[in-house]
Amino acid sequence: MTRQELIKEIFHKKSFLCIGLDTDNRKIPAYLQNDRDAIFSFNKDIIDATASYCVSYKPNLAFYESMGVRGMIAFEQTVNYLKKYYPSHLIIADAKRGDIGNTSTMYARTFFEEYDLDALTVAPYMGEDSVKPFLEYDGKWVILLALTSNKGSQDFQLLEDKDGTRLFEKVIRKSQEWGNEENIMYVVGATQGSMFQDIRKIAPNYFLLVPGVGAQGGSLQEVSKYGMNKDCGLLVNSSRGIIYASSGTDFAQAAAKKAKELQQQMAKEIEKIGQ
Amino acid sequence: MTRQELIKEIFHKKSFLCIGLDTDNRKIPAYLQNDRDAIFSFNKDIIDATASYCVSYKPNLAFYESMGVRGMIAFEQTVNYLKKYYPSHLIIADAKRGDIGNTSTMYARTFFEEYDLDALTVAPYMGEDSVKPFLEYDGKWVILLALTSNKGSQDFQLLEDKDGTRLFEKVIRKSQEWGNEENIMYVVGATQGSMFQDIRKIAPNYFLLVPGVGAQGGSLQEVSKYGMNKDCGLLVNSSRGIIYASSGTDFAQAAAKKAKELQQQMAKEIEKIGQ
Repeated sequence: MTRQELIKEIFHKKSFLCIGLDTDNRKIPAYLQNDRDAIFSFNKDIIDATASYCVSYKPNLAFYESMGVRGMIAFEQTVNYLKKYYPSHLIIADAKRGDIGNTSTMYARTFFEEYDLDALTVAPYMGEDSVKPFLEYDGKWVILLALTSNKGSQDFQLLEDKDGTRLFEKVIRKSQEWGNEENIMYVVGATQGSMFQDIRKIAPNYFLLVPGVGAQGGSLQEVSKYGMNKDCGLLVNSSRGIIYASSGTDFAQAAAKKAKELQQQMAKEIEKIGQ
Repeated sequence: MTRQELIKEIFHKKSFLCIGLDTDNRKIPAYLQNDRDAIFSFNKDIIDATASYCVSYKPNLAFYESMGVRGMIAFEQTVNYLKKYYPSHLIIADAKRGDIGNTSTMYARTFFEEYDLDALTVAPYMGEDSVKPFLEYDGKWVILLALTSNKGSQDFQLLEDKDGTRLFEKVIRKSQEWGNEENIMYVVGATQGSMFQDIRKIAPNYFLLVPGVGAQGGSLQEVSKYGMNKDCGLLVNSSRGIIYASSGTDFAQAAAKKAKELQQQMAKEIEKIGQ
C-alpha cells in the first residue's frame, strides 16, 4: 500500500486507528477455547466487527509463535482473510526483527513475499545493513523502532551524544539516508507526550505508528496535538483495550463499540486538519 | 544448562565452537531438495558429523520462519533431535527478539517453555522490561546484542555519550543490573578485534557469543587473544563456513572437517589458559 492510498483511506474513514491482533489463547472467551480454529475464529469476528472503524490491523507475531505450528497457521489464516476481504487495510506484522544483511533478507522474503504483508516493525540496533533489505520492496513499509511506549525506552533510547542528539533522534535522522517517507514509518509511544514535537522537527512528513493508547495509558488527544501533520501522519494502535473489551459471547460487539469510540475521537482530530 | 556445566564441556572437548544452523532451502545439496524433510535431514547429518567438535548449536529462526509452517516443523524436529541425542550441547535460538514486557513474556514462554531451549539472542533497544522476562528462568540464558559483527554495527552501537561511554558499553553495564554472569552473555562480533579488550574491562567474567569468524572475516586467534578469560568465556560461532563446506553428497564429512579444523585451533587457545 502506498502513502497516498493510506492517506486516502484515513480521510475517507476519518480514522487513523490500527487494531493490534495480540490474540492470546488464554484471554479469548472461554466458550471459544475448545474450537480447533479458536484463534482465527476470534480474529475473524473481531475484524468483521471493527473493519469500518480502522485503517490497519497489526498482528503481533509473539502471540502466534508462542502457540507453535498451530499459532502460525492461525496467523496465516488471519492474513489471508484480511487480504481477501479487506484489501484496503494496511497489514502490519509486529515482529521487531533486524539481523545481519543475509538474515534480514530472509525475514524480508518471509513477510513481504511469502505473506505479502504491507509493513513490518524492525529494530534499529544493528544499523543500515539490518534495515536495508526490507526497503527493497515497492509499496512495502519498514516501521522502525524509535521511541517506544514502555518504561525501558528510557534505558538506551534517550542516550545523548556530545552534541545533545539522543539515540532515537539519531535513528530517525540516519535512517532517512536509507529510505524515505514512502517506505519508512517510526514507532513512537503514545506515552511520550510532548516528545512528538521533537520528532516532528526531524521527521515532519513521516508516518508514526503510535502504540500505548489504552492499556498503557497514552492520550489520543495529546498524541494528535503534538504528532499530527497535514496528512494526518499517525497510525494509533490499540490492542488489548479493543480486542478484550468483553470476555463474553458479545466480545466482537464490545470490540466494535470501543473501536467506534476511538474512531469518533479521531474524526474530531482529523476535522481540525480538514482535507 | 548452567555456567559450570558449559565450562566443563568446553574444557572436556577443548572446544568453544558453536555451529550456526542457518539452513537455507536453496543452499542445501540439490539431491536433498526433493525430500519432504530436507531441512531436518540436512541438519541431522550435520549434527551427527560435527557434535564431537562443538559445544553448542545455534539455529537461526529467520531461515526456518522463511519457509512458513514447514520450516517451523523442521526447527522443532531439529531441537527435539538435539535434546534427545546431544543433551550436553547448549542450544541457542538466534532470534534477536525484544518487545514490551507482556510480549517478551510470550516470547520467553515460546523459547524457554515450549521449545525448552537453553538460550535466546535478544535485542536491547527497548530496555529493561523487554529483557527481564527472559531472565526469570533458571539455567536459561539471554544473549544480548552488544557489538555486532556487521558493518551497520557502527551506525548506533558506537554512539558516545558525554562521558565517552559508547552505546554497546552502556548496554553491557546497564544489563548487569538486571542479571549476572550465570544468565547473561553478550554478542560481540569477531570482526571487532581489539574492542574485546574494552569489553573485558566491563564484563571480565561474562561469556561472549562471537559470530563473524569465517564468512564474515573475523580471526579466531585475535578473538582468543583479546577476548578469552580464565573460564574461556567465549563461544565462537561459524555457520556458512561449516554447513555449506560442500554442496555435494559429502556435505556432512566436509562440515566435520571444517569443524575439526576450528576445534584444533581452539584446543591450542584453551591450552594457553590450561585448567
